[in-house]
Amino acid sequence: MIGRTHMNGHVTEDVIGQSVQLKGWVQKRRDLGGLIFLDLRDRTGIVQVVFQPENEQAHRLAESIRSEYVLDIKGNVVQRENPNPNMPTGLVEVVADEVVILNASKMTPFPISEEAEQTSEDLRLKYRYLDLRRPSLQETFRLRSKASNIMRNFLDEQDFLEVETPILTKSTPEGARDYLVPSRVHPGEFYALPQSPQLFKQLLMVSGFERYFQIARCFRDEDLRADRQPEFTQVDIETSFMDVEDLYAMMESMMTRVMKETLGKDIVTPFPRMPYAEAMSRFGSDKPDTRFGLELIDVAEAVKGAGFKVFDMALEAGGEVKALNVKGAADNFSRKDIDKLQEFTAIYGAKGLAWVKVTPDGLNGPIAKFFDEAAVARLIAATEAEAGDLLVFVAAKASIVADSLGALRQKLAKELGLIDETVFNFLWVTDFPLVTFEEEDGRFYANHHPFTMPRREDLDKLETDPGNVLAVAYDLVLNGYELGGGSQRIYERDIQERMFKLLGFTEEEANEQFGFLMEAFEYGTPPHAGIALGLDRLIMLLAGRTNLRDTIAFPKTASASDLLTAAPSPVSDAQLNELSIRTAVKQ
Amino acid sequence: MIGRTHMNGHVTEDVIGQSVQLKGWVQKRRDLGGLIFLDLRDRTGIVQVVFQPENEQAHRLAESIRSEYVLDIKGNVVQRENPNPNMPTGLVEVVADEVVILNASKMTPFPISEEAEQTSEDLRLKYRYLDLRRPSLQETFRLRSKASNIMRNFLDEQDFLEVETPILTKSTPEGARDYLVPSRVHPGEFYALPQSPQLFKQLLMVSGFERYFQIARCFRDEDLRADRQPEFTQVDIETSFMDVEDLYAMMESMMTRVMKETLGKDIVTPFPRMPYAEAMSRFGSDKPDTRFGLELIDVAEAVKGAGFKVFDMALEAGGEVKALNVKGAADNFSRKDIDKLQEFTAIYGAKGLAWVKVTPDGLNGPIAKFFDEAAVARLIAATEAEAGDLLVFVAAKASIVADSLGALRQKLAKELGLIDETVFNFLWVTDFPLVTFEEEDGRFYANHHPFTMPRREDLDKLETDPGNVLAVAYDLVLNGYELGGGSQRIYERDIQERMFKLLGFTEEEANEQFGFLMEAFEYGTPPHAGIALGLDRLIMLLAGRTNLRDTIAFPKTASASDLLTAAPSPVSDAQLNELSIRTAVKQ
Repeated sequence: MIGRTHMNGHVTEDVIGQSVQLKGWVQKRRDLGGLIFLDLRDRTGIVQVVFQPENEQAHRLAESIRSEYVLDIKGNVVQRENPNPNMPTGLVEVVADEVVILNASKMTPFPISEEAEQTSEDLRLKYRYLDLRRPSLQETFRLRSKASNIMRNFLDEQDFLEVETPILTKSTPEGARDYLVPSRVHPGEFYALPQSPQLFKQLLMVSGFERYFQIARCFRDEDLRADRQPEFTQVDIETSFMDVEDLYAMMESMMTRVMKETLGKDIVTPFPRMPYAEAMSRFGSDKPDTRFGLELIDVAEAVKGAGFKVFDMALEAGGEVKALNVKGAADNFSRKDIDKLQEFTAIYGAKGLAWVKVTPDGLNGPIAKFFDEAAVARLIAATEAEAGDLLVFVAAKASIVADSLGALRQKLAKELGLIDETVFNFLWVTDFPLVTFEEEDGRFYANHHPFTMPRREDLDKLETDPGNVLAVAYDLVLNGYELGGGSQRIYERDIQERMFKLLGFTEEEANEQFGFLMEAFEYGTPPHAGIALGLDRLIMLLAGRTNLRDTIAFPKTASASDLLTAAPSPVSDAQLNELSIRTAVKQ
Repeated sequence: MIGRTHMNGHVTEDVIGQSVQLKGWVQKRRDLGGLIFLDLRDRTGIVQVVFQPENEQAHRLAESIRSEYVLDIKGNVVQRENPNPNMPTGLVEVVADEVVILNASKMTPFPISEEAEQTSEDLRLKYRYLDLRRPSLQETFRLRSKASNIMRNFLDEQDFLEVETPILTKSTPEGARDYLVPSRVHPGEFYALPQSPQLFKQLLMVSGFERYFQIARCFRDEDLRADRQPEFTQVDIETSFMDVEDLYAMMESMMTRVMKETLGKDIVTPFPRMPYAEAMSRFGSDKPDTRFGLELIDVAEAVKGAGFKVFDMALEAGGEVKALNVKGAADNFSRKDIDKLQEFTAIYGAKGLAWVKVTPDGLNGPIAKFFDEAAVARLIAATEAEAGDLLVFVAAKASIVADSLGALRQKLAKELGLIDETVFNFLWVTDFPLVTFEEEDGRFYANHHPFTMPRREDLDKLETDPGNVLAVAYDLVLNGYELGGGSQRIYERDIQERMFKLLGFTEEEANEQFGFLMEAFEYGTPPHAGIALGLDRLIMLLAGRTNLRDTIAFPKTASASDLLTAAPSPVSDAQLNELSIRTAVKQ
């Protein structure tokens, strides 16, 4: 029974009267008054097949058929007696002539339907091949393939070449932790899996490719959170001679096409832009979700000297006092509810969450007593508060105020239903500081990476005031997620050397690790800039999902295990001997 | 001077009279009668720029400019006094108004031109970014990007989904040597880099994706030959329910489109097919180059009992005697030349290379005396020999006859100019033996891999006569290169178990390594088949190159080193400690 005339989802009333041959999986079987009904599923959908007792042979075989059996069926399409208008094939059914069982199936450990979500994720990851049969996951991977193809074709039209860069590369300790690969041919030496193709794409610019892209696999051996995977995919782009404005415009065109051709959404360009400092100040985040307000309000001027010691002390120490005005929420939040908010902000280092409720008669709450009439007026004006509003405050150093109120803002918006989930708000965040001083290590770290170009006008400050040097760097933010980021790159050896020095590299270390790049800069390197977008995250947002694992066919768990194939796993001593390594497992 | 109005290769007579802004690299500088001429190169080509002494500032700057400087130039396009009709921009030149040196360049270690081929490859690999500036390499990577895109779009139209499979996978010792990646989270355990996505693509078929493809990176830690790289790329395809005939037809359509849209070549479909046994017999190769004749001729019947002991002994031992008829070459090959051919065939295990020259009067040469008139007549008839032909013979066991004469056939064809390099001969080689017995190890090995389906009609012989079981496997051959291969896959647990047993796995080993696959077969696995094409090799053939490294942007040497970044390299003890491994380098 070779051959297939139709996909199951396409067997509609247009096909009535035709004989068809179908293949697929049994979604379910029902026996009804001597008739046997099967729902036959393939990647396009489900069609109902009926076995009549008159066709003894097929009917007898059908009796043995269970869910998830794989069948090859010949039959005739007829109008259904009890149509189901809710499915595309609901007006017809296929009267089976012949059936061949291509493969049987045991009872699956969880149902092949959206109900599977009720099952533990570990079990679903072990049987990933069954979980992937769910139509919603199939749809996500269809979306992923389509979105990748849209971007590839867009970049191809823009004269970009896709160039594959190595996976077996050199270990460069700066940045996240590398995955290492022992070399057999060079005992005691190791390759590293790339955290990104950064150096290679810059070298391609040195080579004069001018426009490079790659949908590239990247690797980071970090402790995993819900939105991290040890291997991930980025849409990696680099251009020479291109102005940053042109790069923005090009990325906006690309995202416009992706949104239109995947979700049918029109989005507005150019995307708004916001300097990093403003994003931190107004939203407490460098990737603000701009689908709702609830911004952080600086109330320092309003509360200074009013007599609430906690506020005054924070300000005197150089910190901030900021508030969220939770509009109309005064009555919805009990003291206990607010205690819970306080516990939440404590995660982000806030020692307390002060609050007042706004009533027609003034302020109400534990700290209301500290504010005289003038102070209340200032506070009301600053927060644009009205009767019924809840004001919450954090007083601390700037980073804690931002982190805690930024997170609280997001949490409250979700709980209060302030977010329009149908909206896609793209945003460029710009003007990042080049480096951040980490007190723990007593050194500066690059905010993006060591190859990011400082603003020309800030070059003078690179040695004297590095904390205030801004980078020509930009992040693309979507609905509160960092979709990607990029920068102009350093292309002059002396600036690159100064940068490494700032990051605490000795000259020897810099040369040992990045000498080849700095040497390349001496052979006619063009100005270049680029960007990388996280494909997994983009697909997660397009698919309206919240779990990155749903966008990766064979994802790993939080402990970086593949539960399906049981990787990682022990290997033989012979393998280790060939690689000149031994394991040194602490007992 | 932001902005760029034209690409250099597009500054033709259509642009005369316009003011342009160009960017690029200086190919060369010439000073002539006060004028300074620069050839300015970008990815599209070269245009001549002239600096007139009247424009003092620009002229003075131009005096400092050397080869490979990166420039930003504004000027006016004029008709050239001494046109060069050999280049697209040869009728015009750009009179420079302004010039900005974007970056300088030291003298490059080798010229940025095709003459670089004269330089040692190691030096060119160290400065790969300079070698990649050569137009012919740029063109190869443009071709690679384009061919990939053509195949992607073709497969997309055929409703294939591109699904990314993991790079951090499980080590499965069967097959080539794995690259291993120590796990930090699971001390003493390792991931392996995939030799191919074979298991994952089969699992995607179990998942009901039905049509999968991926342009996938694969890894093999093998000793490298000229046409091998530790990491390589394959166009990986898998389908469910698809008949092998349909798969052939689809691949033929895809290759037709690739050939047409990259090289403008029309190729004929369907591709010819040849069983493995016939390919070995006629061409001494399972990937025969069918662009020329010079086939292996079985002369056993002609020479048997004629009195030449070497031939008779080989035949009596169950071996073969085969000949090549090198048409009209008798006069071109001296005894010394033939000695060299003999040395060549010795590499492939042939103990000797017998030969005769055909003259108008009969045979001439050391073994001529063994043949009486009847034997000569039989030999002439079998080889269709004419006066002036050279016949060479190998007598040995079949595999040595095939290997040595197959290689000699290819060598002679190249040297004698028998190959039409403009022809692309595709060929399906089919009906491969499922397994081969390796005398050294005393066991059977899978010819493709352990997941290849035996022919149904041969299943009975799987235990009793495995050496004569044929597989439903096929290779796609192009001009003597194996472009790719594939097979129907086993999808029933019991057949897979029998296969592992045949390959010497204990039940425990089979379950330990591939238990998840065999378990998957019990949950409704559809019949499926697939193929994988070597992208690097395809591009090599399309580009008319002979070195696989020319098709890979950052290739590795024969000792698997990246000379540019100096990978692999030692890593810190801290890194090794985190991974719970130590190096154990023999001193």
